[in-house]
Amino acid sequence: MSDPSDPSVPSDPVLTGPVEVVGTGLLGTSIGLACSRAGIEVLLSDTSVEHLRTASGLGAGRPSTEADRPQLVVVAVPPDALGAVVAQALRERPDAVVTDVGSVKSGLPAQVERAVGAEAVRRYVGGHPMAGSERSGPLAATPALFDGRPWAITPHEESGPAAVRLVEALATQCGAVPVRLSPEEHDKAVARTSHVPHLLSALVAGRLVGAPEQHLALSGQGVRDVTRVAAGSPALYGQIVSANAQAVLGLLAEVRAQLDAVIDAVAADDRGALETVLARGVAGTRAIPGKHGGPVRPMRSVFVSVPDYPGELARLFADAGASEVNIEDVHIDHDPGRPVGLVELLVDETRAEHLLTSLESRGWVTHR
Amino acid sequence: MSDPSDPSVPSDPVLTGPVEVVGTGLLGTSIGLACSRAGIEVLLSDTSVEHLRTASGLGAGRPSTEADRPQLVVVAVPPDALGAVVAQALRERPDAVVTDVGSVKSGLPAQVERAVGAEAVRRYVGGHPMAGSERSGPLAATPALFDGRPWAITPHEESGPAAVRLVEALATQCGAVPVRLSPEEHDKAVARTSHVPHLLSALVAGRLVGAPEQHLALSGQGVRDVTRVAAGSPALYGQIVSANAQAVLGLLAEVRAQLDAVIDAVAADDRGALETVLARGVAGTRAIPGKHGGPVRPMRSVFVSVPDYPGELARLFADAGASEVNIEDVHIDHDPGRPVGLVELLVDETRAEHLLTSLESRGWVTHR
Repeated sequence: MSDPSDPSVPSDPVLTGPVEVVGTGLLGTSIGLACSRAGIEVLLSDTSVEHLRTASGLGAGRPSTEADRPQLVVVAVPPDALGAVVAQALRERPDAVVTDVGSVKSGLPAQVERAVGAEAVRRYVGGHPMAGSERSGPLAATPALFDGRPWAITPHEESGPAAVRLVEALATQCGAVPVRLSPEEHDKAVARTSHVPHLLSALVAGRLVGAPEQHLALSGQGVRDVTRVAAGSPALYGQIVSANAQAVLGLLAEVRAQLDAVIDAVAADDRGALETVLARGVAGTRAIPGKHGGPVRPMRSVFVSVPDYPGELARLFADAGASEVNIEDVHIDHDPGRPVGLVELLVDETRAEHLLTSLESRGWVTHR
Repeated sequence: MSDPSDPSVPSDPVLTGPVEVVGTGLLGTSIGLACSRAGIEVLLSDTSVEHLRTASGLGAGRPSTEADRPQLVVVAVPPDALGAVVAQALRERPDAVVTDVGSVKSGLPAQVERAVGAEAVRRYVGGHPMAGSERSGPLAATPALFDGRPWAITPHEESGPAAVRLVEALATQCGAVPVRLSPEEHDKAVARTSHVPHLLSALVAGRLVGAPEQHLALSGQGVRDVTRVAAGSPALYGQIVSANAQAVLGLLAEVRAQLDAVIDAVAADDRGALETVLARGVAGTRAIPGKHGGPVRPMRSVFVSVPDYPGELARLFADAGASEVNIEDVHIDHDPGRPVGLVELLVDETRAEHLLTSLESRGWVTHR
């Protein structure tokens, strides 16, 4: 079907289907929708009849049967159930490659091998799309969920090369960017970039409980940002952190040592030691990769006062758009006392002055 | 001049000026601009001739002289210099009320009283506008900086009532909402809502330094939010934290105890203990006051895919505006691999469905 002279069309599409999705929550249903959209047959199963019906109704696939012969099984169940369900899939679908979308990867291969043996575990390749949110369930699903996101592919030592290629093809088919790491590297990475930040966010947020209202009235954007992720489900994050205990504990020990250093520095008024910790934090914020995974380009914030009623943001963005400057990010900082917001537009440093002048010429109050 | 029959015009404007601003950085220059805009004479001084010239040039006021007789002196210098400069102002301007805009309040009254005596310290009233950002210097100033923000007014026990009213009038004149607290209450509040969140954000960010690039490639929006404030100046935050050592240390001790509890819970796989800490975090995120200081209204996120080039956000906001739904907040979550962004629009829960339908009818890809 494909034109071999067109280099954009893979000459040997490895993922032909059917794809079976076990677990029709946000991630499973979104994968079903993405594969269905690509014309791949999708089979669905779930212990919740209601979720299964919803996912089918959305067009994510049809309920699976014992007689089906999926090429690939995607296990998308809660962390605590992953090992057992992956093993079950390897047993029940002896021809299929099996992957999962769990947040923690290093314990699974050994657990699965104990259950199914050394031969069957070759058909298992772990995976973890870096997508999702506080939303959950099939109704939150969308085929675009993975567009442009990293999708960690975590083969273990016994994973078969063809199985790895098949799981990478799934990630690509879903619009994601495969990033290959060992299960152990993956878990160290997410402990650092996700699990430990979540736990410390929860510790900061926990300090706000029971504080006098007048104290909380002084809350600004900073504490809102630091604590946003702490709103996530305690049960889900409990499972995730628990499954990644080793990597998380290593980093928490570092955090504890640094926290002790901060406490000692503040108690002794050792300004040098305190600034060292703070400067390391500044360096850390600069280590996070920039937009689209590329190097961080110098950005500048442009601040604009915007009245807080329908249409004003639209007018601002229309005017910004007319000035041909690409807005990289937006923050709206609400004023606690009156109906006006301070909007921060993050733009390429070299374009900021042009945007300011352009917005001012259209009557906007900017903050230089 | 004012019409006594108009209740919106105060019959007895207490702030008539001149206002002297000592220190023409972001805050000082913004106060000068706000007072000048209101027709109040502003006198400026700064040890930096360049800052002083810039602030005057921006219209924030004229350089002060010894012969001036300011009604109110606003000290807007770095934390380490506050006490000495407030004392100097009380001595050199024997008719004036003196306030400051420092981030920490409880140590100052005693320090000032030791320098100038019990009589003069009655003319001192602390203040702290909850405004500012990573930006600094007079060029970042704007008369709108304080619009709608809380401005903590922190009289000490000897502050004269008329002096307190005068400083509250300054806050109101600058467009802010005065919030009266004792210096000690203020410092406890900002330790909780600002200083400790900042320190923990720096500890999380510090863990990213030197991490393998492939690990950092898995960074999502969560870690970006948690670490954003950690980009602030180490020297400035070192001074602030140091000045508020007592309140910060009390909270850090709580954080340390909770961190130990998390470490123990993860090490022992005590899921109940871990979820207790996480659930307290969820409760904390709900304790932060909602927009405009009012109660938190139920909000819902609407997710839309937006191509990443100039004009597309404008088109989205124009379409959202046309649907007459007020956008409460916006987040843009960049995709690391391709030119499309996921935009999250936060709207009143009761208006979300209408917005989704309206955007879909205009061809937008929403994520339900």
